[in-house]
Amino acid sequence: MSDESRMKQVLENYITTFNTGDLPGLVALYADNATVEDPVGTDVHSGRDAIEQFYRYAISTGAKLSLDAPIRGSRGNFAAMAFTVSVDYSGHASTLRVIDVMEFDDQAKIVSMRAFWGETDVAQA
Amino acid sequence: MSDESRMKQVLENYITTFNTGDLPGLVALYADNATVEDPVGTDVHSGRDAIEQFYRYAISTGAKLSLDAPIRGSRGNFAAMAFTVSVDYSGHASTLRVIDVMEFDDQAKIVSMRAFWGETDVAQA
Repeated sequence: MSDESRMKQVLENYITTFNTGDLPGLVALYADNATVEDPVGTDVHSGRDAIEQFYRYAISTGAKLSLDAPIRGSRGNFAAMAFTVSVDYSGHASTLRVIDVMEFDDQAKIVSMRAFWGETDVAQA
Repeated sequence: MSDESRMKQVLENYITTFNTGDLPGLVALYADNATVEDPVGTDVHSGRDAIEQFYRYAISTGAKLSLDAPIRGSRGNFAAMAFTVSVDYSGHASTLRVIDVMEFDDQAKIVSMRAFWGETDVAQA
């Protein structure tokens, strides 16, 4: 499997583990000292404990992710994907359009995740 | 217009100027000392002259861009978009799936562009 295919497989696993609520499986996709910035422009979550806490909450909202288009690779250690988050906020069905960019280490673990979305990307379903 | 809406408008203009072959209009979206890394993992084009040269060639291929999903903003100076490039390589119609991430300065000029795509994102149409 090429490095590109490997990175894409990790992002497929990211979506699957998120959607099935497999928190340990999701967190295991990250390297120990990884960082998560979600959305870009807010405080960065650093390290496995902070990342686990972040995803425990995210999964608890019942949010589900679906790809808008095929995952992209790169010629470097990066892959990216455009997806839509469907979630209920206080009983209102909402969608959130996001692009995630992930950087990988040599073991194909995620070392950084940056989620591009802002208030103009949130809509009532 | 919010900063987010402004950044998204610039990316709309990026696609329009590219597709109409408006090279000066396209290059004018960039700040003087901007950088372009396309695809990520290859040499960076730095400065307006290098960027103009890069796009002069890109436009000359006849490539056309179409969004795969709405452009995303962020809480910072970044916006991102997933799109498909349609182009003929030596008489063969090809498509190329890309995610671009742009960083902006306070004047809403692009200061860096990074294009995420690799060989697994190219397909014969």
